[in-house]
Amino acid sequence: MAEPILNDISHRRFNLLRGSWILVSPHRNKRPWQGLQESPTKTTLPEYDAKCYLCPGNTRANGEQNPKFTNTFVFVNDYSAVKEEQQEFHPEQKPGSLATRLLRAEAVTGKCYVITFSPSHHLTLADLTPAQIIPIIETWTNLYAANLSPQSPLAQVARATTIPPLTQGDIAKPNAQYRYMQIFENKGTTMGCSNPHPHGQIWTTTSLPEEPSIELEQFKKYRREQGGANLLVDYAELESKEKERTVFENGSFWAGVPYWAVWPFEVMIVSRQQKRALVDFDDKERAELAEAIAEVTRRYDNLFETQFPYSMGLHQAPLEGSVEEIESSHFHIHFYPPLLRSATVRKFQVGYEMLAEPQRDITPEQAAERLRTCGGELYRRKL
Amino acid sequence: MAEPILNDISHRRFNLLRGSWILVSPHRNKRPWQGLQESPTKTTLPEYDAKCYLCPGNTRANGEQNPKFTNTFVFVNDYSAVKEEQQEFHPEQKPGSLATRLLRAEAVTGKCYVITFSPSHHLTLADLTPAQIIPIIETWTNLYAANLSPQSPLAQVARATTIPPLTQGDIAKPNAQYRYMQIFENKGTTMGCSNPHPHGQIWTTTSLPEEPSIELEQFKKYRREQGGANLLVDYAELESKEKERTVFENGSFWAGVPYWAVWPFEVMIVSRQQKRALVDFDDKERAELAEAIAEVTRRYDNLFETQFPYSMGLHQAPLEGSVEEIESSHFHIHFYPPLLRSATVRKFQVGYEMLAEPQRDITPEQAAERLRTCGGELYRRKL
Ligand SMILES: O=P(O)(O)O[C@H]1O[C@H](CO)[C@@H](O)[C@H](O)[C@H]1O
Ligand SMILES: O=P(O)(O)O[C@H]1O[C@H](CO)[C@@H](O)[C@H](O)[C@H]1O
Repeated sequence: MAEPILNDISHRRFNLLRGSWILVSPHRNKRPWQGLQESPTKTTLPEYDAKCYLCPGNTRANGEQNPKFTNTFVFVNDYSAVKEEQQEFHPEQKPGSLATRLLRAEAVTGKCYVITFSPSHHLTLADLTPAQIIPIIETWTNLYAANLSPQSPLAQVARATTIPPLTQGDIAKPNAQYRYMQIFENKGTTMGCSNPHPHGQIWTTTSLPEEPSIELEQFKKYRREQGGANLLVDYAELESKEKERTVFENGSFWAGVPYWAVWPFEVMIVSRQQKRALVDFDDKERAELAEAIAEVTRRYDNLFETQFPYSMGLHQAPLEGSVEEIESSHFHIHFYPPLLRSATVRKFQVGYEMLAEPQRDITPEQAAERLRTCGGELYRRKL
Repeated sequence: MAEPILNDISHRRFNLLRGSWILVSPHRNKRPWQGLQESPTKTTLPEYDAKCYLCPGNTRANGEQNPKFTNTFVFVNDYSAVKEEQQEFHPEQKPGSLATRLLRAEAVTGKCYVITFSPSHHLTLADLTPAQIIPIIETWTNLYAANLSPQSPLAQVARATTIPPLTQGDIAKPNAQYRYMQIFENKGTTMGCSNPHPHGQIWTTTSLPEEPSIELEQFKKYRREQGGANLLVDYAELESKEKERTVFENGSFWAGVPYWAVWPFEVMIVSRQQKRALVDFDDKERAELAEAIAEVTRRYDNLFETQFPYSMGLHQAPLEGSVEEIESSHFHIHFYPPLLRSATVRKFQVGYEMLAEPQRDITPEQAAERLRTCGGELYRRKL
């Protein structure tokens, strides 16, 4: 149990995954809010929108026509942040020069995919049943498997999978071996998302990006120091006993507000058993992961009776890496939602937070309790 | 000179201050924007607002009346994130238990001040002359000096300062010795600021917050590896020669877009000579710092002819620390502004950025060029 005094005093909590601290100021929740109000989402979207580039059968910016897909559809982003082909870059190296010491750059190639979650323009993950979420997890798994290094210990597991292959098989074939695949979703205009049609993104890169790289260091350290134990397996076990930060759990997954959460209603979904990556899951585990995603996103919408904005993303083993890196990795999902008090009042991570340290008002235990108790049917269905 | 190819290819740049990478995708700037539009600021504020808790003579939430101040006024935040007095917290330690290993917290005390920048409700730093900015720098310096550890090598310098003391002398007296003072400003509703009256904040804490702590590690490392050299002094010297990321410079300061900038028009103001903290500056240097702040904020407003939102903050030596920490520190100011293309289109650091790695479209060199060429009179004065 978190010591009750932590509900009353300012304190810092240590983020085990990042090796960094965050400031918690529970009393500050009483602050009146006179700042910016977000616009609540309009919920009057049509099931099909002729102007949407993600709806089945519509034509995209590059002239291609979407198939009449039934659950997911994957294509390469027209405005990819990284590309498979570009000019080569070999930075000039003048040993001893200030420029060589201080201005460091390296080329990055990769591929950016967009994945639709449903043919229906007006649905979100919160509207989908676990059975409708399973094909999304299968598509993610297929893409991950198709991009895995043949040298990875995961490649063999991937070959043994029973998931039906992507019908658009060639899209998943990369030109080169990439190092990491980041699967994520931005939901809501507040989170920079410009199309409400349910979709996510997948970026692969030659580099191991900062966040998974920082986490991997902590995983490796813990594994070495604790005789092969896995940081997040131990953490999920502890949280499942402590209960007070738990939002939902089933046989395979723990979902809750991490002890060190930065965002007011931040949630992490963690596999109870060590799973290095998506390809390690069997049918039952994929179904339970789908259930956990459905439970979290539905509670989010129920909390303030709104389309809850968030960025969400999967962390797992790199596509290519050392055996130590792959064996230390552990599959988990982060949800980073900005809302604080209502559908229109968000938390700003600005000023002190950008310059000094992330800060939160409501405690993770208080947030978890609210999410735990707002399960059940989606509020929109009851209206 | 940055190699020209970096204008065309995706690459990562290394942030020397944080020891971390950011992804740059210059071609992505061509992406059409269909997402959220910010509301442009209304510029019809009165010089005095009877309902503003920061205007001279008005009464604040706690019943206190503001004096009729002429430039700055400092008071303790009614909704402070940290407080001087709170219950003591001694975390329970059970060696070997999962909870002790995984759930780490520590108490934080401190003090949060608000500082007004001007008695006029409708002005911003961009509207003020350097001469009007000097009293703000003097007030920051006084507060910093009053909170310094008597053991710090800076304490003696502080005692020798010629700045007129704060008239509200006792407010600056802390109950305890704090470790760090974070001086910052949130400007604009987009940056979580709820009152347009020009003001900033100052938070002191018993802990050294994450960001200055990360920078300090890099400063110490550079100093050890480069025979006592200072990372930012070397960097300012190089940038001042390279010119292409320079926005403005005078005898004491370099201001420009850092090579590793995350935000589209991010700017750093760096002292050319090693200055550990505010108290190291003399009258001339304070005047030149005021000029640099005026030049940066005026260019920001001119860029998109709007009240440019940002979070800005000072990094300098800790109030209390080892001699190595204090001697390795270097005064600088960060400006983190969110706007990307116009007064209404911002950059979202979400999704990939939160889960994987910060990402930018326009290059730092392109951003610096635009800021460099939009100096001169404030656009509002010309209307
Ligand atoms: O203190 P304020 O101006 O009410 O609040 C603002 O600045 C604080 C410090 O950066 C942040 O923690 C808040 O999220 C933000 O809204
Ligand atoms: O790719 P989108 O959806 O157009 O853009 C959105 O997601 C990207 C990846 O998280 C971010 O870089 C953008 O700032 C955001 O607006």
